[in-house]
Amino acid sequence: MRLTSDARGVFPIAPTPFRDDGSIDLESVDRLADFYVGCGATGVTVLGQLGEAPKLEHAEGVEVAVRTIRRAPSLPVVVGVSAPGFGAMRALTREVMDRGAAGVMIAPPNTLRTDDQVVGYYRQAVEAIGADVPFVIQDYPLTFSVQMTPAVIKRIATDNPSCWFLKHEDWPGLDKISTLKGWEKDGSMRKLPILIGNNALFLDFEVERGADGANTGYCFPDMLVDVVKLSKAGKRDEAHDLFDAHLPLIRYEQQPGPGLAVRKYVMMRRGIIAHDTLRKPGASLSSTARAEVDYLMARVARVDPRAKV
Amino acid sequence: MRLTSDARGVFPIAPTPFRDDGSIDLESVDRLADFYVGCGATGVTVLGQLGEAPKLEHAEGVEVAVRTIRRAPSLPVVVGVSAPGFGAMRALTREVMDRGAAGVMIAPPNTLRTDDQVVGYYRQAVEAIGADVPFVIQDYPLTFSVQMTPAVIKRIATDNPSCWFLKHEDWPGLDKISTLKGWEKDGSMRKLPILIGNNALFLDFEVERGADGANTGYCFPDMLVDVVKLSKAGKRDEAHDLFDAHLPLIRYEQQPGPGLAVRKYVMMRRGIIAHDTLRKPGASLSSTARAEVDYLMARVARVDPRAKV
Amino acid sequence: MRLTSDARGVFPIAPTPFRDDGSIDLESVDRLADFYVGCGATGVTVLGQLGEAPKLEHAEGVEVAVRTIRRAPSLPVVVGVSAPGFGAMRALTREVMDRGAAGVMIAPPNTLRTDDQVVGYYRQAVEAIGADVPFVIQDYPLTFSVQMTPAVIKRIATDNPSCWFLKHEDWPGLDKISTLKGWEKDGSMRKLPILIGNNALFLDFEVERGADGANTGYCFPDMLVDVVKLSKAGKRDEAHDLFDAHLPLIRYEQQPGPGLAVRKYVMMRRGIIAHDTLRKPGASLSSTARAEVDYLMARVARVDPRAKV
Amino acid sequence: MRLTSDARGVFPIAPTPFRDDGSIDLESVDRLADFYVGCGATGVTVLGQLGEAPKLEHAEGVEVAVRTIRRAPSLPVVVGVSAPGFGAMRALTREVMDRGAAGVMIAPPNTLRTDDQVVGYYRQAVEAIGADVPFVIQDYPLTFSVQMTPAVIKRIATDNPSCWFLKHEDWPGLDKISTLKGWEKDGSMRKLPILIGNNALFLDFEVERGADGANTGYCFPDMLVDVVKLSKAGKRDEAHDLFDAHLPLIRYEQQPGPGLAVRKYVMMRRGIIAHDTLRKPGASLSSTARAEVDYLMARVARVDPRAKV
Repeated sequence: MRLTSDARGVFPIAPTPFRDDGSIDLESVDRLADFYVGCGATGVTVLGQLGEAPKLEHAEGVEVAVRTIRRAPSLPVVVGVSAPGFGAMRALTREVMDRGAAGVMIAPPNTLRTDDQVVGYYRQAVEAIGADVPFVIQDYPLTFSVQMTPAVIKRIATDNPSCWFLKHEDWPGLDKISTLKGWEKDGSMRKLPILIGNNALFLDFEVERGADGANTGYCFPDMLVDVVKLSKAGKRDEAHDLFDAHLPLIRYEQQPGPGLAVRKYVMMRRGIIAHDTLRKPGASLSSTARAEVDYLMARVARVDPRAKV
Repeated sequence: MRLTSDARGVFPIAPTPFRDDGSIDLESVDRLADFYVGCGATGVTVLGQLGEAPKLEHAEGVEVAVRTIRRAPSLPVVVGVSAPGFGAMRALTREVMDRGAAGVMIAPPNTLRTDDQVVGYYRQAVEAIGADVPFVIQDYPLTFSVQMTPAVIKRIATDNPSCWFLKHEDWPGLDKISTLKGWEKDGSMRKLPILIGNNALFLDFEVERGADGANTGYCFPDMLVDVVKLSKAGKRDEAHDLFDAHLPLIRYEQQPGPGLAVRKYVMMRRGIIAHDTLRKPGASLSSTARAEVDYLMARVARVDPRAKV
Repeated sequence: MRLTSDARGVFPIAPTPFRDDGSIDLESVDRLADFYVGCGATGVTVLGQLGEAPKLEHAEGVEVAVRTIRRAPSLPVVVGVSAPGFGAMRALTREVMDRGAAGVMIAPPNTLRTDDQVVGYYRQAVEAIGADVPFVIQDYPLTFSVQMTPAVIKRIATDNPSCWFLKHEDWPGLDKISTLKGWEKDGSMRKLPILIGNNALFLDFEVERGADGANTGYCFPDMLVDVVKLSKAGKRDEAHDLFDAHLPLIRYEQQPGPGLAVRKYVMMRRGIIAHDTLRKPGASLSSTARAEVDYLMARVARVDPRAKV
Repeated sequence: MRLTSDARGVFPIAPTPFRDDGSIDLESVDRLADFYVGCGATGVTVLGQLGEAPKLEHAEGVEVAVRTIRRAPSLPVVVGVSAPGFGAMRALTREVMDRGAAGVMIAPPNTLRTDDQVVGYYRQAVEAIGADVPFVIQDYPLTFSVQMTPAVIKRIATDNPSCWFLKHEDWPGLDKISTLKGWEKDGSMRKLPILIGNNALFLDFEVERGADGANTGYCFPDMLVDVVKLSKAGKRDEAHDLFDAHLPLIRYEQQPGPGLAVRKYVMMRRGIIAHDTLRKPGASLSSTARAEVDYLMARVARVDPRAKV
């Protein structure tokens, strides 16, 4: 699968499941893939920041990607290839594209400051991975300390036809979506799909502002699918009702440190993965935190029966 | 009012009200003070980051502080005195303490990195303002890029008897509260009240973890008062029900850029201040954002009648 | 003195002299001013970062500026007015311009990232201080973490006719000078004088690249004057010979922490100021460091007799 | 070669030589190794930041390391293995240690802030690579934004017996050396060799303060060897005379961006490597810069005949 201008719906960010001993749990990789297909995801991203990619050795990363590609042939699989240098980025890209990946995701290194540096970085990255490889811009200033204005994103999209979509996780970010979608509409920028991230904390309004979907890892990807559908169908209140029921947990899971442990714990409770292990170094949840998550799930369950587990 | 080991309940962070021409709206300063007293606040902080303090000239800042002190004699008034140097910090502190302030709030400059630098900074600040002036530590890594471990906070509190309370807005921050309150309980640290900030995004669990209250500026300070009371009274579900009804708006207001405009807009709609003007440079809300806030308020109003305006 | 397109030669950054008790040593302020006039400086900057401005109260800062203005009526005096907010910046600017300052220097706050943020900041600053006040851009990424491309500097200069000159202390910065001076020459940018900073570490080549002079605080401003003159007169080898003799000490003084103490110690030994006191908090030199500086001065003195003291 | 408490003299940071087409120039790798042995280096570090390591693919990095190890069997070879995650770090370490490397160098990721985070990071790294692998701490705040106090370095050295030496490139850093060597002397810290970096900008005084040598990449490693020897032999003035003759070029090469191109250009002129190519993305020197370097070399050659080429 190559170069498509279309990305919409929900591309979950897949966690990497581990067994208790820290080895990769391939059965759970399969189960995750099945779950994504089953709940209506339109794609999936592996080896993202919250896929614990930096803890994997090269061969392990390739294995996770390939396993997902094979298990879910109907889903375009995006592979995170961000790296401190273009050597490793090129090597991983080449390998996963050869094995059937749909594209790659690239975050900017946190040393970039000026507009030209950001634009230049993506030009160099495309030169490294090849102009035929669809790539996703990850715009996440909170984590990467790199700020991209709408004008910079437009330059990247214009300069590089292989730019596939924007993983938008700026904060605040609502006006950025409005600006980009306005340019798309008035023809001053080409079509650039926007899938939102940031654990979906603003999904409700982001879709209303024109975002095409979500590309994030909240522990109820099925809820994300439903909210996007409801919102796109004009059922505003229903979308917000469902979203708001989850918001206390979304917020809890969005915490930078323990968030991933929350995500894995809930997905384990839901039976989607077998263990909630994080590979070392990675903190597990305290019993207090675990009880707080249980409490939040019980409250979600009053509205969304999927949280009854 | 001087040196007290007790701080509890809600100390709202007061916005500075302006008229449409950018001049200070002293009538609204009074109305705000009345509102805080009326809703059960136990203190108030003026000239914080979200009080637009850096846009005020020295004399204006003093005027806002003094006006509040006079209008609400029952409330301890904390004054933000953070400054790039100790000259301005000392001058403002001296002036407001002479006029009846209860204490001052000090945030660390964003160049501090090591534990010793942070501890040393507060020692120098106390030397500059005088050891008899109660001060509040503002621990807000997201904005100030300075990270204080619980051990560092303990050192500051131990070294400086004039350390009054901690404005806690670390993120994630739940375990930090548990650690500090654990030390307080087992006697390995002196009593250090914790009032939480970060627009109250985690108020629900923070109080359960042991926080003594809130020190933040959400546009419904009266709700914060109620949630703290409910939680302290053991009415957990009721506390969460009320909190969760506001969470979509809390989250919306917590956005770094437009958040303050949201806060002022809602407080204007509630009749607490006369205008939602931000002093330049300060962005006003787009009509889209305004409509989103209206929508959120209408949804809050289904549970909390105070949002019906 | 107002708005002039010309700035050349050496504008030393003046240290603020203190007595041993930390009070301002006005006699030394006078002596400094006399020294600058005597050695051929063409201007002087007070209240810069290394003028310990943040440690001064407002009135003290004004006093230092006014004293210098009165003592050296032949020298245009630039006053550092950088502040976290426009309130304080406007107040100080108004006061010193009324008393005869030639202009002000403004550094960008270290939160700025994108090109538009930097350009917008200077536009807002000009709006705050008044479009009739000549201002200097301080471009010092190492300290302020703000990166300005040549294109950004050009936009600031073009948008704001009151932009007087560039205090250039980017690192690396040689090509930036070449680019800006190239634009000046080919008419694509208006005349923008460049005075270099960064403790003159690259003065030798910066003048050869087209810089108009220096605006920095090395403890031998008279040497800076000579090097600029020699270089502008085409005496390349002589310029480098003199510069290189000082380079070991320049480098030593350029150290971020102890550098200012080195500068004051040497200026005290030279009899230009009476004490080498830094106002608290400010480290003094260890005896080891003092001995190292003595050794360096003795070595400089082999070439430059002014170092024999 | 394993775990030795001794490191002294000069471990040059080797550049990675490329041919004009960007492929690795293995003949020049050999020539470099021969040169290091010939000039009295006591070790060598490959795949450092300025070894363009991030631009190499895994296999290329291993090839460069192994080639150097085989060519210079008398020199302990340190391999830079810094990586955003422990997966890649472990894989590369295992591979090069199996092939005869003497140890690895680890820089902290630039997200670390608190003392505990830094100490914890090195503990985790040792867990990942194995406690039997000698490792070097790279303390370079200017590039990595991580500040380690002497107390933190002491904790790392104490916690991890496999900590081999400190690559010291803090700035300012003289007092840090004095503090650490003072602790070593009074027995409050175990022996921890210190080799200095930062392009040797302070080598002269750093050795006098107690540093055991240098671990940096200046284009005249042979000069570094001589200065260390002279200084250790008590020939202070001679050491400074030689050092000062090079300082204008040291300073020029120390520039963050073009510095590496300067280094390679000079080493090519000296005949140590065949090309001065940087792998993409990497800027080459402008003709102006090249002429400036030629001029500096000619000036060095007046004192040090090795610069006559």
